[in-house]
Amino acid sequence: MKLETKIAKFTKPLYLESGRILEPWQIIYETYGELNENRDNVILITHALSGSHHAAGMYEGDRKPGWWDGLIGDGKAIDTTKYFVIATNVIGSCFGSTGPISPVYPGSSERYRLKFPVITIKDMVKAQKILLDSLGIKHLKSVIGGSMGGMQALRFAVDYPGFIEKIFPIATTYQTRPYVIAINKAMIEAVRSDCEFKNGNYDPKEIRKRGLKGLAAARMIGYLNYISPVTFDKKFGRDYVKTDGMFELFGRFQVESYLEYNGSNFPKWFDPLSYIYLLKAISLFDISRGFTSLKEAFSQIKDKLVLISFSGDTLFFPEEMREIKKYMDEVNGKSEYYEIKSDYGHDSFLVEIDKFEDIIKNELNN
Amino acid sequence: MKLETKIAKFTKPLYLESGRILEPWQIIYETYGELNENRDNVILITHALSGSHHAAGMYEGDRKPGWWDGLIGDGKAIDTTKYFVIATNVIGSCFGSTGPISPVYPGSSERYRLKFPVITIKDMVKAQKILLDSLGIKHLKSVIGGSMGGMQALRFAVDYPGFIEKIFPIATTYQTRPYVIAINKAMIEAVRSDCEFKNGNYDPKEIRKRGLKGLAAARMIGYLNYISPVTFDKKFGRDYVKTDGMFELFGRFQVESYLEYNGSNFPKWFDPLSYIYLLKAISLFDISRGFTSLKEAFSQIKDKLVLISFSGDTLFFPEEMREIKKYMDEVNGKSEYYEIKSDYGHDSFLVEIDKFEDIIKNELNN
Repeated sequence: MKLETKIAKFTKPLYLESGRILEPWQIIYETYGELNENRDNVILITHALSGSHHAAGMYEGDRKPGWWDGLIGDGKAIDTTKYFVIATNVIGSCFGSTGPISPVYPGSSERYRLKFPVITIKDMVKAQKILLDSLGIKHLKSVIGGSMGGMQALRFAVDYPGFIEKIFPIATTYQTRPYVIAINKAMIEAVRSDCEFKNGNYDPKEIRKRGLKGLAAARMIGYLNYISPVTFDKKFGRDYVKTDGMFELFGRFQVESYLEYNGSNFPKWFDPLSYIYLLKAISLFDISRGFTSLKEAFSQIKDKLVLISFSGDTLFFPEEMREIKKYMDEVNGKSEYYEIKSDYGHDSFLVEIDKFEDIIKNELNN
Repeated sequence: MKLETKIAKFTKPLYLESGRILEPWQIIYETYGELNENRDNVILITHALSGSHHAAGMYEGDRKPGWWDGLIGDGKAIDTTKYFVIATNVIGSCFGSTGPISPVYPGSSERYRLKFPVITIKDMVKAQKILLDSLGIKHLKSVIGGSMGGMQALRFAVDYPGFIEKIFPIATTYQTRPYVIAINKAMIEAVRSDCEFKNGNYDPKEIRKRGLKGLAAARMIGYLNYISPVTFDKKFGRDYVKTDGMFELFGRFQVESYLEYNGSNFPKWFDPLSYIYLLKAISLFDISRGFTSLKEAFSQIKDKLVLISFSGDTLFFPEEMREIKKYMDEVNGKSEYYEIKSDYGHDSFLVEIDKFEDIIKNELNN
């Protein structure tokens, strides 16, 4: 599989939903496989909150492959011998696309920080569309994404009707519900409560080296919703860390040790401001914004939706995706809904690829 | 209803499950109604994480009554014209019973802080039993409590068989599951991540005045589990605060404003160290500790359990209380299980009193 990383730089302003402007701006992306002559074998992969453009493959020295490597590759469900797959890093994130820790202008030592504009899912998708335009891609075979990536897929379907053959929103929603907004709020406040966050004026290098307890706590809150109570039971039980005292205040159950490990590592590879901005984007997500109703929003869709949800998802519940199916049946008539039986939880879309790869394979081949 | 607040001071050591000793120690408690001559009309109320001994009634100048006022009072389900009701503040808490911000000895300006011993549910119950003994109470009509209060009720049943006529564990569990331990961990780390927590060496007066963002964030995490996703939907929808900008980074949905309000108020009335110690007690709770099996633990119970759970409780799931019922059927044969249909969430035991007050009333009268 041919794997490349590129950066696309744009000098034309990006007009955001907020009324603010990004200028200049850039997107980092990876591609897998080869673009055919007609430029019509393109699949776009959209990532979740902590994801990146590194969706598949490995570079020399990497310890693990991209986050959807099980799905994307030669002969895999998203077959890179057939398709030219593009995975971008969304604007607002921290892996190379323009985000809150980017310099305010090229070469400046000043970073945007809290002056960075609020980014919405619509903006992320618009930026990706501009990238695709710049690559001369006039039609997509597919957009595939889970969680926040699923929001982008759905947004693509609504904002650019006729542009994509099949759209795969996975483990996502059409309108972030208050419960998820509340989770996001708790995470945002955990970050802000850490004095080392310095109201956004931290030294990013220092944070990556020394960590940020507030962001670690926020990541722990995330985990409470990424895997289900049942998975917590199965994975950890009530096992206690062998070297810790049961009656030490900070003695740890295995599950606590797991959260500590993943929490404290998180700031080493993810930026706290990007985290806050992307959570805001998720909270603001509402496919009907700008329309008079949800039905009107869904009526924009001209292409086929393939909806995949997981029965044990406690972040974006299957009910929410069934709602999408209901709207689609009313206005479009070209959608499929698959509900995967699983008690793993929201992260099924990352972890249980074997349970839905055939759906993606078959839908892509038909 | 006669309402009194008292403090019981003990000079004899309290031997804790950890092997540590509290000496001297004290319990603050309220009583409602009158103790009869035989001292056999006593009901003990056990409180949840953020609860206190102020379970019912109002003192002059109070803006709101105790936390279970709807249930306890003259002519109410827990009828104070018949029963003498005692509600204590658990040791480890911060409303007047010995806890981590208590002086290390009477009159000392040094507080325990992180030197305070880990307290377990067993210890809380033991302390309450010593209080009851000191009041010459040899038998309880009932122990009634929800959440952490339900753990105490269950612990009473196991540790002091034959002492109580009917025990009401409500919205609780027999063994804190890994998922809840994980929630507790995220809350604890949110508190610790706030530099103003100063590793436990904060000035309590300052915190009560100025707040503690980490504790506020922890309280928000709590709310995510006290009310259900459905309740979040019903209560708040996606309404936005009228004076906030949709595209301001810290602009707020109503649900965020609600969390901010309750979060930021919390440190004004609850102590961060007590919070951590009580979360630890909840995580450690396992009715079978000290026994070879759960069955052996439940076999200790000689009295009648009245179990009440709520179908929409996403913190202590009804399944967990059905497990208790299953064990009781095996070993005791004297239990009742009531599952209240409700989608409110864990806080049903505080908020939806009208849905279970008759159960308590009838069970107390039979």
